[in-house]
Amino acid sequence: MNFSSKHIEDVINEFAKLPGVGRKTAIRYLLHVLKQDDKETETFAAALINMKKELKHCSVCHNISDKEICNICSNHNRDKTVLCVVEDIRDVMAIESTQQYRGVYHVLGGIISPLDGIGPADLNIESLVKRISEGEIKEVIMAFSTTMEGDTTNFYLYKRLKEFNITVSTIARGISIGDELEYADEITLGRSITNRIPYENVLPIR
Amino acid sequence: MNFSSKHIEDVINEFAKLPGVGRKTAIRYLLHVLKQDDKETETFAAALINMKKELKHCSVCHNISDKEICNICSNHNRDKTVLCVVEDIRDVMAIESTQQYRGVYHVLGGIISPLDGIGPADLNIESLVKRISEGEIKEVIMAFSTTMEGDTTNFYLYKRLKEFNITVSTIARGISIGDELEYADEITLGRSITNRIPYENVLPIR
Repeated sequence: MNFSSKHIEDVINEFAKLPGVGRKTAIRYLLHVLKQDDKETETFAAALINMKKELKHCSVCHNISDKEICNICSNHNRDKTVLCVVEDIRDVMAIESTQQYRGVYHVLGGIISPLDGIGPADLNIESLVKRISEGEIKEVIMAFSTTMEGDTTNFYLYKRLKEFNITVSTIARGISIGDELEYADEITLGRSITNRIPYENVLPIR
Repeated sequence: MNFSSKHIEDVINEFAKLPGVGRKTAIRYLLHVLKQDDKETETFAAALINMKKELKHCSVCHNISDKEICNICSNHNRDKTVLCVVEDIRDVMAIESTQQYRGVYHVLGGIISPLDGIGPADLNIESLVKRISEGEIKEVIMAFSTTMEGDTTNFYLYKRLKEFNITVSTIARGISIGDELEYADEITLGRSITNRIPYENVLPIR
């Protein structure tokens, strides 16, 4: 396309670097920014810069935080004996928003994916093993997506953590709340029968 | 959701202001920015600020430009007697990239849309009428989307421009190149028969 100014070209190129954003979407974003007040654009730019300047990774769990140790790791009310291993900080946010989990986290920073060239050495796995070897942790919950990569990571971690005297569990796989049985895929339905749970453990929806 | 830092919240809120971006997409963009070099984020922020600082609307056609009068209006090789009226600068870019149009433009900055509360007074229509009243323009091509709003704008402009001794046309509506006749909707197909064109006027695809 033919742009009337280099500044437009620059902004479109920058927006188009965002994941899932092509040139058409970038132009849409650009038009939005053009219509904004100058002040709003300055706030936007400053928010980006400030975030990069202030944020670091928590030295314990690799979650992002503006402190050396994140709010979750430094919270005395959290159960330090239960550790939930997740792919990235989005999963921490998602689990935190359920308000059902009182333990701590470990963020791998990715998932084992040979197709993308990501192996165990690229993830925060050594620091996970080190944390567990310190002895305080009694249970590790692996909370990954139910994809091939998630299953691979589950299996790899299970083998690495076998030597420690801890429980290793994964989050339950089964029929989502609100799903109709007849539309569930066979593997999910099959697993949900194999891994059936005592009815008393299920909190009824009120 | 529960964020571990106010800086994250700020950036998510800013991204979520972009059109079509919700909080999940905003978090995806945020993770991308977090993974970038600090330098890249600074370039991104600077591109936004520079664009807002340097760009203005062309005082003749309302296209965006870094000069008082845009490259198209100030180009002596463009035909100043033919004027194409469009909704916004995206349409200018799209028409320019066809390389089929040698006239000039007029950007309305929107389209008449009573449902969104946008009337003729909110658009650059008075400056259009003024340009035409100066007498140099011989033909006005209305190039809007084939929506209700586009048709309304066509009709309103046609009525406003009737008093001048000029040709008012709209871009052709018909079967798109590559479309199969049997899948075309009835209105498009009907119009394409009513507005049939002499075969000599059609450039064969080579």
